[in-house]
Amino acid sequence: MSPTCLTVQSVSDARISRVRRQGSPAAPSATSPADQVEALFSPRTVAVVGASADPTKWGHIIAGRALASPGEHRVLLVSRRGGEVLGLATHRSAQAAAAAYDLRVDLAVLCVPAGAFVDSVADAVAAGARAIVAITAGLAEVGADGARLEAEGVAIARDAGAVLVGPNCLGVVDTTTGLHLAPTELPAGDVAVLSQSGNLALDLAGLLADRDLGVSRFVSVGNQADFGVVEFLQACVDHGGTRAVAVYTEDVVDGRAFLAAARALRGVGKPLVVLAPGRSEAAVRSAASHTGALTSSSMVVDAVCAAAGAHRVDNPTQLADLLVGLRAPRRMSGRRVAVLTDGGGHGAVAADALAVAGLETPVLSGPVTTQLEAALWAQATVTNPVDLAGAGERDLASYARGVQVLLDCDDVDGVLLTGYFGGYAAWHADLAGPELAAARQMAEAVVAQHKPLVVHTVQPDSPASRVLRAAGIPVHRDVDRGGAVLAGLVETATTGLAGERPEPAPAVTDTSYDAARALFADAGIAFPVALTVTDPAGLESALESSALGFPVVLKATGRLHKSDGGGVVVGLADRGQVRAAYADLVTRLAPPAVSVEAMADLADGVELIVGAVRDPKFGPVVMVGLGGVLTEVLDDTACALAPVSVDAARTLLLSLHGAPVLLGTRGRRPVDLDALARVVARVSDVAAAHPELVELELNPVLAGPGGALALDARVVLG
Amino acid sequence: MSPTCLTVQSVSDARISRVRRQGSPAAPSATSPADQVEALFSPRTVAVVGASADPTKWGHIIAGRALASPGEHRVLLVSRRGGEVLGLATHRSAQAAAAAYDLRVDLAVLCVPAGAFVDSVADAVAAGARAIVAITAGLAEVGADGARLEAEGVAIARDAGAVLVGPNCLGVVDTTTGLHLAPTELPAGDVAVLSQSGNLALDLAGLLADRDLGVSRFVSVGNQADFGVVEFLQACVDHGGTRAVAVYTEDVVDGRAFLAAARALRGVGKPLVVLAPGRSEAAVRSAASHTGALTSSSMVVDAVCAAAGAHRVDNPTQLADLLVGLRAPRRMSGRRVAVLTDGGGHGAVAADALAVAGLETPVLSGPVTTQLEAALWAQATVTNPVDLAGAGERDLASYARGVQVLLDCDDVDGVLLTGYFGGYAAWHADLAGPELAAARQMAEAVVAQHKPLVVHTVQPDSPASRVLRAAGIPVHRDVDRGGAVLAGLVETATTGLAGERPEPAPAVTDTSYDAARALFADAGIAFPVALTVTDPAGLESALESSALGFPVVLKATGRLHKSDGGGVVVGLADRGQVRAAYADLVTRLAPPAVSVEAMADLADGVELIVGAVRDPKFGPVVMVGLGGVLTEVLDDTACALAPVSVDAARTLLLSLHGAPVLLGTRGRRPVDLDALARVVARVSDVAAAHPELVELELNPVLAGPGGALALDARVVLG
Repeated sequence: MSPTCLTVQSVSDARISRVRRQGSPAAPSATSPADQVEALFSPRTVAVVGASADPTKWGHIIAGRALASPGEHRVLLVSRRGGEVLGLATHRSAQAAAAAYDLRVDLAVLCVPAGAFVDSVADAVAAGARAIVAITAGLAEVGADGARLEAEGVAIARDAGAVLVGPNCLGVVDTTTGLHLAPTELPAGDVAVLSQSGNLALDLAGLLADRDLGVSRFVSVGNQADFGVVEFLQACVDHGGTRAVAVYTEDVVDGRAFLAAARALRGVGKPLVVLAPGRSEAAVRSAASHTGALTSSSMVVDAVCAAAGAHRVDNPTQLADLLVGLRAPRRMSGRRVAVLTDGGGHGAVAADALAVAGLETPVLSGPVTTQLEAALWAQATVTNPVDLAGAGERDLASYARGVQVLLDCDDVDGVLLTGYFGGYAAWHADLAGPELAAARQMAEAVVAQHKPLVVHTVQPDSPASRVLRAAGIPVHRDVDRGGAVLAGLVETATTGLAGERPEPAPAVTDTSYDAARALFADAGIAFPVALTVTDPAGLESALESSALGFPVVLKATGRLHKSDGGGVVVGLADRGQVRAAYADLVTRLAPPAVSVEAMADLADGVELIVGAVRDPKFGPVVMVGLGGVLTEVLDDTACALAPVSVDAARTLLLSLHGAPVLLGTRGRRPVDLDALARVVARVSDVAAAHPELVELELNPVLAGPGGALALDARVVLG
Repeated sequence: MSPTCLTVQSVSDARISRVRRQGSPAAPSATSPADQVEALFSPRTVAVVGASADPTKWGHIIAGRALASPGEHRVLLVSRRGGEVLGLATHRSAQAAAAAYDLRVDLAVLCVPAGAFVDSVADAVAAGARAIVAITAGLAEVGADGARLEAEGVAIARDAGAVLVGPNCLGVVDTTTGLHLAPTELPAGDVAVLSQSGNLALDLAGLLADRDLGVSRFVSVGNQADFGVVEFLQACVDHGGTRAVAVYTEDVVDGRAFLAAARALRGVGKPLVVLAPGRSEAAVRSAASHTGALTSSSMVVDAVCAAAGAHRVDNPTQLADLLVGLRAPRRMSGRRVAVLTDGGGHGAVAADALAVAGLETPVLSGPVTTQLEAALWAQATVTNPVDLAGAGERDLASYARGVQVLLDCDDVDGVLLTGYFGGYAAWHADLAGPELAAARQMAEAVVAQHKPLVVHTVQPDSPASRVLRAAGIPVHRDVDRGGAVLAGLVETATTGLAGERPEPAPAVTDTSYDAARALFADAGIAFPVALTVTDPAGLESALESSALGFPVVLKATGRLHKSDGGGVVVGLADRGQVRAAYADLVTRLAPPAVSVEAMADLADGVELIVGAVRDPKFGPVVMVGLGGVLTEVLDDTACALAPVSVDAARTLLLSLHGAPVLLGTRGRRPVDLDALARVVARVSDVAAAHPELVELELNPVLAGPGGALALDARVVLG
């Protein structure tokens, strides 16, 4: 969106008269972060620098929005050209403006061309500004020259103790202080919104308004040269007007700081919902093109959100829906949901929707079915889904009684009411009263509960539905949205993952197979016996070794993936086979060396990949996956910020879709999960201690009942 | 839903006066299916049997709805008690009513108690009825006595050449003939709706109405004693008033007939959308409790829909959305989508939404990017997502030009316009005209196309959005819904899967391991050498066999899963190991026999499961899955109605998520896909030829570069 076509309401005289002489300008001084945030969101004086009479210019639009803001701040207009803008006299500089009224500028909004950026920052801080919002575009996002100017301006601001938002941003809003320095109106409310996309923020604002929610603070971070995602999150921790935070981000800049800020928000009970595209290659491409962001792998973002207790969503609708669900303090402590309906069709469809959302609809226990039998009529189905089987309109209170039993029981972590409730009044006027009474009963029942109730109804705007909604119960027209919200309300463990990073160990320089094995072996990871040979004589010596035995594996070393091109030969049963295979490898691949290894028995074990990568934003990330050669196509992997404890590694392993294979299926004995978790934890330690390594991989790791053995190893330097 | 609280509008005299003497009653005669369908949906005379003055009774509600119907049919009321109902005289029987007016009853609606069902059917057919709609409940669904009565009534109807809907149903509606014999109003339109759930049908009707769609015919099938899902589908093939068919089904009764009817609908170009719960265990449980349906596995339903070219959806919202998308003839011939937006955020989010829907957002080719560069301004991003990068409101026509290029190009199969388009007019009045013009251009551009355009917009009800919608372009407020509709428009291959069933072969009676291997080996499937031994002497003879070699596998037979409890011992390298393992197996498990087998080299192959089950509705179904022991937890399986051709088997194998493993990864050679496909086809043949077998399984099948070898086999008799 560009400002070309924006218009600005005419500014009242009352507003203009606010710009009056008061006090004397203060010199720039050492400024605390709290002062900076106050200057940003609660300025007493705002200077719009680059104010313009041309309605197609940002300097016009922002000036108009500033003057029309309901807050108590004074607005000064600065224009190099001078003259009047929006009926108000302008000043040649922020310093001149401050001097003219004998006051100090708290916040300067820069709508100047890129070439005037540095001087304008210097002028702003000289006028006292402790906060600068730089709408100015054409800086780091266009190339090296712009980046130099940007860095110069930011340095000036920082030296003066001022915070800088942007450049290349859309502005800031704080509806709690009446500050509106963004091109469009946002609905007021208590959700703080941070967005790296202007149009997406408008979309989101509309979705929030549709749900009777609104924005407390809005920040467009732009190039994040100084104040970015992390600082905004920190600023929300103590902000009284903010109850929840929504973030659209393509680039968190400093991942570990993001995690700390997200955890701080969680610590004060403010939910954080993150919309971070990147599940698809095209989204990654789009983000790179849009903000130049080097996007973290989507799995890493998932891991970070899990570690921080933040909620990740896939689109603005999910974000808005989940914010509604998160307003009430009720959470799912597990994934078990009871479905209550009148009619088998809705029950079955709801159960499927819950499954799609990753939730369960378990059979209810004997005591609970007994209670349901007492609460409902004889024809009701009291398994799960619970089906009133036609009793709905005969006895609307039975809905409320059913909900009460399900909310009270220990069999489930949440309740989904689905189908016709909410629609009875529209069907027949006589049902309006009983339906409303039942809704009120449910609203009362849910208040005392830790467990959420979510409603899907054919009539989401009926009086009964409004009663439910007023009680903080999410009400949806579409059952899949209801399921998604319940899934979003599942409490996840946030501890254990992502320990502190150790001191770096001496840097690895040798990335040969032998050296990689040694690095991991030193960390306590077991490998089969292996002897490196470089000539036939060496091979004969190896074959004499009592440690080796048969069968034997030969690996040609010196390539990234040893198995490419047939570089690994397994199952060699005697010396003759080994010699022949060796000769063949040397002829075909001419490897620098061949590793002669005892062959592990694959029949009774499970193959996994255990690895780590260095994420550009979040640092070392450890990854586990099932399947050996299948790993790449099965998508069954999980990751966590490294290092992880053995306990956290165990949790990670058990989070795999295929975890039952580790626990034993079809007569197979369970693998030694502790030994496997130790391997994962040790790999994460090595990754954390070696920032010079961008990739580490043990593939496969063979986990069996008696332990875990790494059958191959490789490391890659950055 | 029950009728207790339903009320009926007062019936006008004009309506009542229709019930007048005309013609003479005809005797029941041989009736064609076409006659039956005409009697059901276009009756000249309708008798409501069990008409009641009690407004809580079905006999009251249906009588009222019948009398209020706008159709030209005559309505006769029948009540054993006599007297007036809704101001109209009743008759003691259908025959008496017909005689009184000297006409013949075409359709009788039975609202009588279960005990009067049989007599009422007999009375109806005697009065000439060729169609009976039995609302009557308490028959087969409540137990054996009811089932007997139901069967008796159905036999009487069939003998008389009459079709019967229900019993235990909610009625029928045909808005094209003005016939309303269901408890509530349904919006008129051209979508035929079949539902096994009353409340769900109401839900769906509301969702259709929200999208300016409506119902041509509605049938509640109830117990499907005679006329059910299949017959309804058949009746829609030639129905002029029906353009699309929506089905909610928990039980299709005859799966192969369902497939044939679905294919017939496809043959006449009428889309079929199927909502069939059962993806979750709870949905299966719910359906069993609701309609007593023995639900087919969800994967089987997927396979059938794929084979029939029908569209499966997960919930009513998806169903309604997809019906909108299917109204236009435009389809996706692949999974590649171009995203057009103004703003990187919306583009990235849309790409992720498409990925979630199983679609791709590929990089565009050089020629197409060149065309986009010519059509858009210099700052636009012309990869995919295509981003106008702020040009939207400067040049609204650029949206239309971009859409045109993307619709015309061969790089993608569909286009998703996402974000702010549709919202410009609300932002600034000056933009209304250009936005509307751009919408009209897009509407014109899309008409000539086979390719669909789907729109996500922040303002789905704006004038521009309405122009798009009027052109048959689906317009969504939520981007994920748009992605789901595009995915639903992907054309799938419908040939090859599900061949004709062969004549049954002589029935299998011996399900021992040896017999199972022989059954599959006779069909041409290869196994390793295996020798069955029952005592140590037999073992010694086997070890003498030159065919065996080492290493050897021992399998204890006689149990369903040989590996349970350690019944399979692999990798025995010499006679001593074999003897020791044999002794151990005999001691531990006392098996009837032990199979001594050559051990296949697992290192260079991929393990799969190839099996078949007998679905209660669809008959033999062949299944393939990757992973050997991992199969059960990896969920990567695919199935098709058996038998399948080798070509179809190959398609099935390539549909696996893990198919790349078969095609060779990381230096592994591709497996012999033809050999593997032949194994799948042969298993499907065996399954189809042996209806007595409910389960057949080769697990694992080892597929390698040189062929495919079945390492184990089992069959289960029904």
